[in-house]
Amino acid sequence: MTVLIADPAARPLDVVADFPAIPPGWAYLDTAATAQKPRAVIDAITRGYDTDYATVHRGVYQRSADMTLAYEAARETVARFVNATPDEIVFVRGATEAINLVAQSFAATRLTAGDRILLSTLEHHSNIVPWQMVAERVGAAIDVVPLTADQRIDLDAMARMLRPEHKLVALAHVSNVLGSMLDVRRASELAHAAGATILIDGCQAVARLPVDVRALGCDFYVFSGHKLYGPTGIGVLWGRRALLDSMPPYQGGGSMIDRVSFERTTYAPAPTRFEAGTPHIVGALGLAAAIGYVQGIGLERIHAHETALVAQAREALGRINSVRVLGPADSAGIVSFAMEGVHPHDIGTILDESKVAIRAGHHCAQPLMAALGVEATARASFGVYNGPDDVAALAAGIERVARIFG
Amino acid sequence: MTVLIADPAARPLDVVADFPAIPPGWAYLDTAATAQKPRAVIDAITRGYDTDYATVHRGVYQRSADMTLAYEAARETVARFVNATPDEIVFVRGATEAINLVAQSFAATRLTAGDRILLSTLEHHSNIVPWQMVAERVGAAIDVVPLTADQRIDLDAMARMLRPEHKLVALAHVSNVLGSMLDVRRASELAHAAGATILIDGCQAVARLPVDVRALGCDFYVFSGHKLYGPTGIGVLWGRRALLDSMPPYQGGGSMIDRVSFERTTYAPAPTRFEAGTPHIVGALGLAAAIGYVQGIGLERIHAHETALVAQAREALGRINSVRVLGPADSAGIVSFAMEGVHPHDIGTILDESKVAIRAGHHCAQPLMAALGVEATARASFGVYNGPDDVAALAAGIERVARIFG
Repeated sequence: MTVLIADPAARPLDVVADFPAIPPGWAYLDTAATAQKPRAVIDAITRGYDTDYATVHRGVYQRSADMTLAYEAARETVARFVNATPDEIVFVRGATEAINLVAQSFAATRLTAGDRILLSTLEHHSNIVPWQMVAERVGAAIDVVPLTADQRIDLDAMARMLRPEHKLVALAHVSNVLGSMLDVRRASELAHAAGATILIDGCQAVARLPVDVRALGCDFYVFSGHKLYGPTGIGVLWGRRALLDSMPPYQGGGSMIDRVSFERTTYAPAPTRFEAGTPHIVGALGLAAAIGYVQGIGLERIHAHETALVAQAREALGRINSVRVLGPADSAGIVSFAMEGVHPHDIGTILDESKVAIRAGHHCAQPLMAALGVEATARASFGVYNGPDDVAALAAGIERVARIFG
Repeated sequence: MTVLIADPAARPLDVVADFPAIPPGWAYLDTAATAQKPRAVIDAITRGYDTDYATVHRGVYQRSADMTLAYEAARETVARFVNATPDEIVFVRGATEAINLVAQSFAATRLTAGDRILLSTLEHHSNIVPWQMVAERVGAAIDVVPLTADQRIDLDAMARMLRPEHKLVALAHVSNVLGSMLDVRRASELAHAAGATILIDGCQAVARLPVDVRALGCDFYVFSGHKLYGPTGIGVLWGRRALLDSMPPYQGGGSMIDRVSFERTTYAPAPTRFEAGTPHIVGALGLAAAIGYVQGIGLERIHAHETALVAQAREALGRINSVRVLGPADSAGIVSFAMEGVHPHDIGTILDESKVAIRAGHHCAQPLMAALGVEATARASFGVYNGPDDVAALAAGIERVARIFG
């Protein structure tokens, strides 16, 4: 593992040349939506199709046997990345599917009328709507942990709210809007003390922080590959082995069965049970390459790098009178802000003219927008390829917006 | 459209040079499991990541707006490919997910105890297990249409079996084991006359036959991209607009909502309602490129080409005493066979030594294996890149197997 850099500013990352889709002078600040891909990932994908391509798990010829080994090696890479074992790693389309899988195969089969699910105000829609669908189906209720004054999930409030009826807790490790980091270990202890199972949405965390699911103490951890510098269409569900083993299949199809007859079908053990159909083979290879890439830099170093950029951005934006910077000061890689009298979409459009790409909108977090008292925010989110120049371009762009609307 | 070639042998396809992962002398005969990719598809994928990459539907910057247009243009390409409209095309991971989506969002919400689902003996597990899961959940029963003597789905038997209790019929357009083609138009008329909705599994058909969902008359049509020379992790659900509009969402998450609050969430119209989360953006671009590729050759021409190869293979294999060739004489692109006293896995392994890649096993169709009275078959399946040389290599390999075990 890369050791923590004492002074990140002394050794800034300088890897933008690894990213062919980022032209010189383009400040790509939408990594929380999706990350750009390093050449190593693109090459792994290309090689998967133009040299090594075959199906997995079935072929009796060498190419298919080799591809099966590569696919399962990708699973091992993912497992090591979060300190899990390969049989706890389910490949899915993305975090959204992972949460839906747990909602349907775990929650919908165990929760009954009167049970409760605990979420937080800052959750992404993908960590709200699947639970609403389950709650409606089984007659459960949803409670919402509020935020602290500095816009983190309020774990003290959560401790007071938890009751034996709470069977499931689902929280974001890092807020996709505010960058607020959750103390997952404490959240897990609180959930477990109340007898609840806890799922963590790690979409914004895995590319920004070292993640060790054993140390975090949660029960399920989910993330998408495309936000981790990997391909689209691939993601990961990690679950404790005993939990996965106890869950019925989510989708039926090829590969996930043991034996099929019209009278009786039996299912394969986890994780195979949850991977019906031909998987996104090349997606798994690309994800493994992406993990290799970020590990080559080191997650501690990436975290220090993004923390420095966030501090610079908060400082620069904070100096502009009409800007209200949201979220806690120690946000992980993400800065949301609002400007008095300017719609965030207008901010985004004007910044685009200056070759600065941010996101403006509700960020699939409408309940959080309501809590913040806004319809939308402007959001700048950082990745390994960003540097102080990008922060300067953002600040210059916002100053221009302020002048236009001033 | 390319016109039907009167004498396909007179103008054989010669496109193997378009496929970089097929080295000279390798007879890849496992296209029914997954197709190799033409350079045009690989280039579209690479370009999606190394030049044009951005998220869709959300960005306020130009790159993201351009990618959204490309993603929706891919949907239009798919729609034209099967003579549908774009709002009837749902991007999914593959056919397996498409069938599970219809099983859960359509069947599970409408069928009740006492209702019946009609399948056939030759269905792939992906067109059996999802219906078993629904049947178990709602208390429905499953009936199975038998095969004719020449191993097609017996539509006369189906006509006699259909009763008002049958609410759903699900059948393969082309059998993945035998290549048997279904008269989808007649099957649809029979199903509709009984008041049933009919889903067609088009996985093996879309790369082998021209498909026009309006002319076929079915209600749902599903296929995977990777069997159509496209990327892994992408597939298509086509459904009649009124049916899709009437179905509740399958997965919850970002993009598929209209408005989310903890009190009440409302959903977007189809197809967006069924595409929760960031989609497999580059997968959709690659699939569109694959469709462009096969349309450039012409489906009628591909069908004629594969029909000629099947005829040559059936003839060559039929001359070997110990070989029993399965399936109807007019199979589409696929030939399954058995050899007296030789396990299909041994056939596959010995052929691999001769650089011939076939599949051996139950092909995710165990009920069909039971009906055929075998545990497994050997299967050769053709694609646009195959030619008479590949058939000759297959036949020579099988003769060698016969000598070894003779």
